[in-house]
Amino acid sequence: MIDHYYAVIMAGGGGTRLWPLSRQSRPKQMLELTGPESLFRTAFRRLQGLFAYENILVVTTQEQAEPLMAQCPEIPPENYLLEPQPRGTASVVGLAAVALQQRDPQAVMAVLTSDHHITHEDRFRHLLETAYDIARREYLVTLGISPTYPATGYGYIQSGELLGNYRGLEAYRVRRFKEKPNLEQAQAMLAGGDHAWNSGMFVWQVQDILKEFQRQMPTLHDHLQTIGRAWDTLNRQSTLQATWSQLEAVTIDYGIMEGAERVAVIPAAGLGWNDIGSWESIFEILSKDQNGNIAADGQHIFLDTHNTLFYSTHPGRLTVAIGVDDLVVVDTGDVLLICTREQAQKVRQVVNQLKQTNPKYL
Amino acid sequence: MIDHYYAVIMAGGGGTRLWPLSRQSRPKQMLELTGPESLFRTAFRRLQGLFAYENILVVTTQEQAEPLMAQCPEIPPENYLLEPQPRGTASVVGLAAVALQQRDPQAVMAVLTSDHHITHEDRFRHLLETAYDIARREYLVTLGISPTYPATGYGYIQSGELLGNYRGLEAYRVRRFKEKPNLEQAQAMLAGGDHAWNSGMFVWQVQDILKEFQRQMPTLHDHLQTIGRAWDTLNRQSTLQATWSQLEAVTIDYGIMEGAERVAVIPAAGLGWNDIGSWESIFEILSKDQNGNIAADGQHIFLDTHNTLFYSTHPGRLTVAIGVDDLVVVDTGDVLLICTREQAQKVRQVVNQLKQTNPKYL
Repeated sequence: MIDHYYAVIMAGGGGTRLWPLSRQSRPKQMLELTGPESLFRTAFRRLQGLFAYENILVVTTQEQAEPLMAQCPEIPPENYLLEPQPRGTASVVGLAAVALQQRDPQAVMAVLTSDHHITHEDRFRHLLETAYDIARREYLVTLGISPTYPATGYGYIQSGELLGNYRGLEAYRVRRFKEKPNLEQAQAMLAGGDHAWNSGMFVWQVQDILKEFQRQMPTLHDHLQTIGRAWDTLNRQSTLQATWSQLEAVTIDYGIMEGAERVAVIPAAGLGWNDIGSWESIFEILSKDQNGNIAADGQHIFLDTHNTLFYSTHPGRLTVAIGVDDLVVVDTGDVLLICTREQAQKVRQVVNQLKQTNPKYL
Repeated sequence: MIDHYYAVIMAGGGGTRLWPLSRQSRPKQMLELTGPESLFRTAFRRLQGLFAYENILVVTTQEQAEPLMAQCPEIPPENYLLEPQPRGTASVVGLAAVALQQRDPQAVMAVLTSDHHITHEDRFRHLLETAYDIARREYLVTLGISPTYPATGYGYIQSGELLGNYRGLEAYRVRRFKEKPNLEQAQAMLAGGDHAWNSGMFVWQVQDILKEFQRQMPTLHDHLQTIGRAWDTLNRQSTLQATWSQLEAVTIDYGIMEGAERVAVIPAAGLGWNDIGSWESIFEILSKDQNGNIAADGQHIFLDTHNTLFYSTHPGRLTVAIGVDDLVVVDTGDVLLICTREQAQKVRQVVNQLKQTNPKYL
């Protein structure tokens, strides 16, 4: 355990990226996608040895709190912070920061995701230890991922000056954040060798991130301080409710990181990291048979079928595929999705369409 | 109505060609595949005006008799002839022939299928009338279909000498029956212009077909005569049961037609005939949207999806397809089939595999 080190797991995400398996009522972090436990519990479990249970916080929504608590009863209930409504990740980070500020002014907080896959958890813990050391030097540390292909689905971080080698990992000053690129831009960044994927995970001292809120988003900072002052009083809930809807809804990347002053990146290689942003990501993670197929649950007969993911929630159902290549087939009883792996991202369009036409399927 | 003219609808087929929709307990002829009524009822209905109800016979199995009678209550119950077990179409034809011989020695019987689609029913009735005229001239008449593409899924009939023009249709002496060809052979036959598809439908005088049984399959003929003598007695069922299992199981084409002496063919064009031998046949028959898709029942959202058949028996289920081309998707609750239209015939392989491994899905 490291002194004054806290993990903040963001677990309030919506349920649309892996629709129809993920739903509003059962978003991605609650699913057992990559193994026998949910992504949320996996995100909790891989912190063990590094953070005491009472140093792990979860930011989530009212609706999701109860099932998440049931999945991780080890985390004290008061460590589940509830967003009254979704207001962007800047608010989520700010809420956790002011809550920690009340508890421990010297707190270093790791902002972590609940819905990413990480194959090599020991390397991830090593990365978190390293980031702590750099955060103690008053840097806002972003956890970068050394890219393995020209991904267009991630944001990128360009490294500048080398800050040093810490515990065997190099840390750089961040030169620039870059939003999701097109393929040509992604290829150029991959070739350049000085870009890492933005994992959306950060480590910093609470006092440093709050200084950046004060400097760059003073109104949000004022609201956060109002919440902070009420935190250990009987007015916590009412203040949170009254304030929250006034917060500017913006991501921490756009609202703070892009304009922050002392930002470092540790480009980590070999984590086996995947943000599970689409069915194609699931296809990449799961193990395949000799024809490249994945059949998660259910009975199946495949003839001349290759590189296809079958995900069914009907154990008694027989799936037969003949002559099929490079598809994703997801069967949840009420919905059957058949899409090419290449176009798996378009599930989002369907979700948007259903919001208008048929929300019962969301 | 034409004197002494009888229709014999063969409706005892198994349920494997359109699996998983067709099942052993609900074979193709019982399905509402092409409209609001079953193929069997359609086969019955299109005979109206040409055959009195009491002149329509049905040969089927014990298991199928009750549901078929429910679908066509107009046909007198005693006109449903029951095969004790499947013994090939030669036995089916022979049974109907001896039953009719008892009833009307001058009978002309049209042997008809119960599971084919015919778009232009008036032309089909006209063809049946024409065939009657030729059968009266002591020919065994086969109903040919002028080929529209080099099909490899049908048998072919080569025309020889022109017998004449009857009611506007040309009839030829048959030169040769040809089993299902390969593509090259089919292309040559199509180009030659003297081949028709074998529809599996025939018209002949009962006395003529029985003579051919006697000449070519004398043992089967003896058994049939035994059944015929018992037909109008109390021993009908026991004789049928005792005799049937001894019959040689062979098709009428192979057992009789290929070696028969006075065989005619009427190559009919423009019937819109399709034997619905595979899901690809269903795709050809049903009407499509502007992207060439067919969505039979259920709700659906298609993005960038073309020339695909979706057949679902779940009205409340949402089917979403993204980037999909030229597939057949059949969803029966217990089974989900996804196959390329090109390989739709391979459903048969799956059915054969299931016979060994998991017959509950048949």
